[in-house]
Amino acid sequence: MSPLLESYAAGRWFRAPDEGRPILDATSGEEVARVSSQGLDHSAVVAHARDVGGPAVRALTFHERAGILKALATDLGQLTDELYALSLHTGATRRDSAVDVDGGIGTVFSYASKARRELPDDMVVLDGALEQLGRRGTFVGQHLYASRPGVAVQINAFNFPVWGMLEKLAPAFLAGLPSIVKPASQTAYVTAAVVRRIIESGLLPEGSLQLVCGTTGTLLDHLGAQDSVGFTGSAHTAGILRRHPSVLDHGVRLGVEADSLNCSILGLDVTADSPELDLFVKGVVTEMTVKTGQKCTAIRRIIVPEALADEVTEAISARLAAVTVGDPADESVRMGPLVSLEQRDQVRTAIEKLRGGADIAYGDPAHVEVVGADAQRGAFLSPVLLRARPGADEPHDVEPFGPVSTVMTYGSNAEAIALAARGRGSLVGSLVTHDPGVARDVVLGLAPWHGRILVLDRDDAAESTGHGSPLPTLVHGGPGRAGGGEELGGIRSVLNHMQRTAVQASPDAMTAITRRWTKGSARTVDGAHPFRKSLRELRVGDTIESATRTVTLDDIDQFAELTGDTFYAHTDPEAAAANPLFGGIVAHGYLVVSLAGGLFVEPNPGPVLANFGVDNLRFLTPVKADDTIRVTLVAKQITARANADYGEVRWDAVVTNQDDDPVATYDVLTLVAKTWPPEG
Amino acid sequence: MSPLLESYAAGRWFRAPDEGRPILDATSGEEVARVSSQGLDHSAVVAHARDVGGPAVRALTFHERAGILKALATDLGQLTDELYALSLHTGATRRDSAVDVDGGIGTVFSYASKARRELPDDMVVLDGALEQLGRRGTFVGQHLYASRPGVAVQINAFNFPVWGMLEKLAPAFLAGLPSIVKPASQTAYVTAAVVRRIIESGLLPEGSLQLVCGTTGTLLDHLGAQDSVGFTGSAHTAGILRRHPSVLDHGVRLGVEADSLNCSILGLDVTADSPELDLFVKGVVTEMTVKTGQKCTAIRRIIVPEALADEVTEAISARLAAVTVGDPADESVRMGPLVSLEQRDQVRTAIEKLRGGADIAYGDPAHVEVVGADAQRGAFLSPVLLRARPGADEPHDVEPFGPVSTVMTYGSNAEAIALAARGRGSLVGSLVTHDPGVARDVVLGLAPWHGRILVLDRDDAAESTGHGSPLPTLVHGGPGRAGGGEELGGIRSVLNHMQRTAVQASPDAMTAITRRWTKGSARTVDGAHPFRKSLRELRVGDTIESATRTVTLDDIDQFAELTGDTFYAHTDPEAAAANPLFGGIVAHGYLVVSLAGGLFVEPNPGPVLANFGVDNLRFLTPVKADDTIRVTLVAKQITARANADYGEVRWDAVVTNQDDDPVATYDVLTLVAKTWPPEG
Repeated sequence: MSPLLESYAAGRWFRAPDEGRPILDATSGEEVARVSSQGLDHSAVVAHARDVGGPAVRALTFHERAGILKALATDLGQLTDELYALSLHTGATRRDSAVDVDGGIGTVFSYASKARRELPDDMVVLDGALEQLGRRGTFVGQHLYASRPGVAVQINAFNFPVWGMLEKLAPAFLAGLPSIVKPASQTAYVTAAVVRRIIESGLLPEGSLQLVCGTTGTLLDHLGAQDSVGFTGSAHTAGILRRHPSVLDHGVRLGVEADSLNCSILGLDVTADSPELDLFVKGVVTEMTVKTGQKCTAIRRIIVPEALADEVTEAISARLAAVTVGDPADESVRMGPLVSLEQRDQVRTAIEKLRGGADIAYGDPAHVEVVGADAQRGAFLSPVLLRARPGADEPHDVEPFGPVSTVMTYGSNAEAIALAARGRGSLVGSLVTHDPGVARDVVLGLAPWHGRILVLDRDDAAESTGHGSPLPTLVHGGPGRAGGGEELGGIRSVLNHMQRTAVQASPDAMTAITRRWTKGSARTVDGAHPFRKSLRELRVGDTIESATRTVTLDDIDQFAELTGDTFYAHTDPEAAAANPLFGGIVAHGYLVVSLAGGLFVEPNPGPVLANFGVDNLRFLTPVKADDTIRVTLVAKQITARANADYGEVRWDAVVTNQDDDPVATYDVLTLVAKTWPPEG
Repeated sequence: MSPLLESYAAGRWFRAPDEGRPILDATSGEEVARVSSQGLDHSAVVAHARDVGGPAVRALTFHERAGILKALATDLGQLTDELYALSLHTGATRRDSAVDVDGGIGTVFSYASKARRELPDDMVVLDGALEQLGRRGTFVGQHLYASRPGVAVQINAFNFPVWGMLEKLAPAFLAGLPSIVKPASQTAYVTAAVVRRIIESGLLPEGSLQLVCGTTGTLLDHLGAQDSVGFTGSAHTAGILRRHPSVLDHGVRLGVEADSLNCSILGLDVTADSPELDLFVKGVVTEMTVKTGQKCTAIRRIIVPEALADEVTEAISARLAAVTVGDPADESVRMGPLVSLEQRDQVRTAIEKLRGGADIAYGDPAHVEVVGADAQRGAFLSPVLLRARPGADEPHDVEPFGPVSTVMTYGSNAEAIALAARGRGSLVGSLVTHDPGVARDVVLGLAPWHGRILVLDRDDAAESTGHGSPLPTLVHGGPGRAGGGEELGGIRSVLNHMQRTAVQASPDAMTAITRRWTKGSARTVDGAHPFRKSLRELRVGDTIESATRTVTLDDIDQFAELTGDTFYAHTDPEAAAANPLFGGIVAHGYLVVSLAGGLFVEPNPGPVLANFGVDNLRFLTPVKADDTIRVTLVAKQITARANADYGEVRWDAVVTNQDDDPVATYDVLTLVAKTWPPEG
C-alpha cells in the first residue's frame, strides 16, 4: 500500500487513522499515494492560523515578508528535480512540469521582487492621493490598505499542484494573511512535497502555512468577515461554495477562478499567406495539447473568418496528427494521459454533448495510438477537433476539460465579439491580427468578457508567452462563467487581500497614522540641515527652509545662453507679452527648480549621496524677472533598502515667491546613507 | 385618493392599472402617494437599458459624460425647493434634507469634476504601468478598464431618496452603464420627482435612466454577467439578493451597503478637560438625531474609557434632553418623526431586544413630547440612550434603525479595537483622540473592519464633515455585516463598474488599442517639428530626435555658479571620486534636463504654449564631462480640454549619451493650442 499523505495542521504533521483513498498514476494506473483527512480538527487549523500564523506574519513589514519569499523561492529551486519526477505520476510531460514547477517558483520570485520595489517597508499601503476635505487644509482624507486579522483558505485544482498553490500563497503572505492550503486530492502528493519542504526550511513563521490533504470538511464553517477563500476549479463546485452560509451570511470573501470556454480569434485582416495564420494554428495546437488540455485557460473555441475555416481546420488537424501521445517519461512523447480515468470519462461525455452541435474534424474519442504505455490502463485520449454547425449552442456551453476544441466561423468584427461573448465570461481570449484597427475594435469588444487578452502578431510572436500562460504581473481571472475572481496582477492581488479604508483626520494625525508626512502637518526645523542626517537620524517632517534668491533678467538670459533653451517666453519680451499664460518674460521652469536645488543643497560630502529623480513637478505660477523665490523641503517618506547601506528619502518640495504663492511643487528623490560617516 | 407614482420604463411613463399601495406622511399619517408596478414589463426595461441606453452612453467619452453630469447637477439645483417641500412628508427636517438633496446634487458635481480631471477623454482607462514581458521589448502588457455592455440596477433605501439615487447613478453613468433605479416605496415620490425632472431635461441619452416604482419584480431574472445590482438596505434583504440565481449562477455582480453597528471611540488619552470630550459628545448626539437616526452610518455603539463612562453618559443625556421632537416643518424642531409607524414599531422592538443586555440611561421608548404635531398619528420616538452591561452581546448584534445608541466601556486600545470588531464589519467608525500613538494604533486596528474611519480632534473639528457623512471622494461601504460593497471614493467607483483586463500585445498593437504611445512602438519623424503642430494636427507617435550636445566641465562649472548648486559631486573632483555612485565629477541632473530642453525646444511662438510640468523623472546614468547627450521626445498622450482652446500633451522624453545608454527618462507636460494660429 502506498504512503498516506499527511496534513500539516496546528504546528504538526497529522496522519489520519484510516487507510485513506488511493490515488492512481495517470499512466500506469498503479497506486501512488493515499489521502484522508479523517479526524482532522479543522477548527483547530483555522484557530492556529488566526491566533499564531496571522500575528506572526503581520509583525513583519512588506519588505521583510518579501525577503522571506525570496529565500523560499531560492530554497524550492533545490526541489525541482524531485517535483518533476513526482509530476510524472500526474501524466505531466517535462514541458508540462516546467509550467507548473518553474512557473510556480518564478511567481514567488516575481512577488518578492515586486513587493520590494512597489510596496513600502511598512504594514500599510497608501492608495491614491491625499484628498483635501476642507478649504483651510485642517481636514484631509487618505485611502489606505490595511491587513486583515483573518485567514486565507486556498482550494486548488488538480492541474497545477505547484503553481496553483504558490500563486495563491505568495500574495496572501505579502498581504499579512496565513494560508491554509487544500490541494485537489488527485495530485495532492505533489503539493504535499512542496509544503513539506517549506515547513522543513523553517523560513515561514509557524502557522502562516498549513496543509489539509483530504476534504475541506468543516473548514469554511469557522470563517468570518476577515477571512477569504480562494478557489480554482469547476463552476459546479464554485456554486456550492457560493451557497455556503459563511459566504452568504457571514461576509467571507470568495474568489473564484473557474474553467471557462476561452476563445482564440483569427483577425479578418489575416490572409492565407500572412505569417499570422501559422501563428494562430500553432497557438491553438499548443493550447489543446499542453497539460493534455487540462488548463482553465485552454482554447475551447476557435473563431475564424468564414473564408479561412477549411484551411484552418485542415492545418490544425495536420499538426494534431503529429502529436505523439503516451508515457510522459518518454522524451518522444508530446502529450501524456489525462490525470485519471474518471477525468477521461468526463471528457468523453463532454465530447458526446458537443456532437449535438458540432462534427468531429479530427480524432477519435474512443481510440488513440499510445507510445511506451498500456493504452488500456492509462487515461489516454486523442486530441479531438470539432467543427461547429451554424448557430449551435453546445460549443458555447459545454466544456471538455481535455485536448478538445471547436472551430466556428464569423463574418465581421461585431460577429466575432458576439461569438466570444456567448461563452458568458472567460479567463483569457486571444486575437491574432496585424491590423491596428482590428486590434482596437476587437480588443475593446472582448475586454468586458475577459480577464486577459493576448494580441498575437509577427512582431511579438517570438517573445510571446502564449494564450494559456497566466503571468505573475498580469491579472488572472475573468467575469461571469470564469468566476469573477482576480488573482496575480502583481501588487493588485496583494491589495485584493487587504481592506481598503478611507481615513479622515487632521494632517498631524494623518502623518502619525501613515508614517508619511502629510501636507499641513508639523515640520521640524531644528537648526541641523536635514541633508547632514543619516537615514537612521532623519525623521519624517524634518525640514529645510531655504534662504531667498531673487531671479534676475540676467539669470534668465544666462540660463538661456548656457542651455540653448531660447523659447520666446524667456527671451523675446514682445512675443512673451502676447502669450496668454505669461504676459511677459518668465524664468524657465527648469531654471526655477535648478535655483531651488541651489537653495536647498548641502555642498559638502554627507549622507545624501544623490538625487535620483523628481516626481509630480508642476509649475503653478510664472516666475518673472526680479521675483524672489525660496524653497521648503520636508522629509516625506523614508524607506531603508534591506540589502544596501542606503535608502530612499522622498522630500516634499514647494517653491514660493515673494507673495508666498506656490511657484512649483514636486517630490525630490534622494539616496541617503544609513549611517554617516559610513560604518566599517 | 393621492396620485399613483408612475415608472419610467422603456422610453415612456408607465402607470399601473390598479390603485396601488398608499404611502403615508410620517408626521400626519395622511396619504401622500400611491405606488404600484403591476403590469410593468421588467424584461422590456432591462432590454431597453441594454439595447438603447447602454450603447448611447458608451458612444460618449468620459469627458462628454462628465459634461452631461455637470449640466444635470446644475439643472437639479433648480428643483431644490420642491424637493425640500416633498421631503417634509418623509419626516425630514430642513437640516436632514440638506444632507439628502444638496448632498446628492453636490455628489454629481463632484463626479463631473473628478472625471474631467482624472479620466482621459476616451472610453478606456489605463491601470498601472506598462509591463515589459520580454527582454527585447517586443511583448508588453497593460491593464485597462473597459466599459461593460450591461445594465446597473440600483435598489435604494428609504432614508436618502435623492442622494441614494444620485450617488449610484453618477459613477455608473461615467462608467458607461445605463441605470435602472428602484427606490424604496416609502419615499419613492421624492426620487420620482428627481427622475421626472431629469427625463424632462432631455440631458441624459434615452434609455440611460429608467425608474421602477413598486416592486423589483422579475428585474433580476433578466440580468447576466455584464450586469450589476447595487443595493442599499437591510442585511436581511441583502441575504435574499445574494441567494438569487442570477447572482449565484449567472455572474451578476452584487454590491451591498447594509446597515451596520458603527461605533465611535473616545481615546484613552482624552481627559475630562480635553476639548475632545465635548467634540465626542456632540458627534454622538448629532448622529443619534440627524434623520432621526435612520442612517446606515449612524453611531450605534459608544465606546468610552471606563473612567469617563458616567460623565459621557450624563453629557449625552443632557444634550438629548434639549432636542426638540416634532413636525419637521416647524423651525424649532430638531428631530422629526421616523419615516413610518411600521419603522417605529421595529425600532421599539429593537430597543426591547437591546434591553436584554443594556439599561436605558435616557429616553422613554413609549413616550415623547411632540411639538406642532399629533403624537398619536406621527411616527415619533424619543431619542434613547442605553448603557451596556458588562460582556453583553445585544449591543453588538441588534441594530435599532432610529435615534438609539448604547454606551459601553473599555480599558486598553486593544480592548477598544476588539469591541469595535464585535460589530463584525461596519461602514464607518470614528475615533476621538489627540494622541498620535493612539491614532496610529487604533486606526490600524479598526481599519480592516471599516470602510471609513474619522479621526476627530481639536485640529480638524471645525472643518470635519462628521462621522455620518459619506463624501463623494472617499469610499463608502464596509466589510462583513456592512455588506462588503464599495461605493463612491471618486474614480474608484467608476472603475468598480468596469472590467479590468490585462492586454498583452506588441508595442504597435498596444498603441493602437490604448491610443497612448507605447514604448517600443513606431515613431513618426516627418521633418516637421511636432512643436509646430496644433493639437488638431498632432498625432500620438510624433517625434523629435534632437541634435547632440557635448557637456563640458565648463558647462557644469557655469551651471553651479549660476544656480548656486555647488554639491561636491559637481565641483570637487576628489570628493566626487569618493562618491560610490559617481566616481568623479558629474553634471547636475537639473543641468541634463535643462540642456535636453534646449535641444528639443522650438524657440518661436507656436502652438506649444507652456511646459506646465514633468512626471517620473529618473536619472539613470551619470553624465560626466565631455559626454555627449541627445534627447528623443515622442507625443504620448493628447487630451483636448472641453472648455478651453488648448489641451494637454504628454511627451515621452529619453535622454541618451554617446553610448546610447539612457541618462534620464521622464514625461514632459505641455499645453498646446487646438489650432495655430489661433482661430477667431
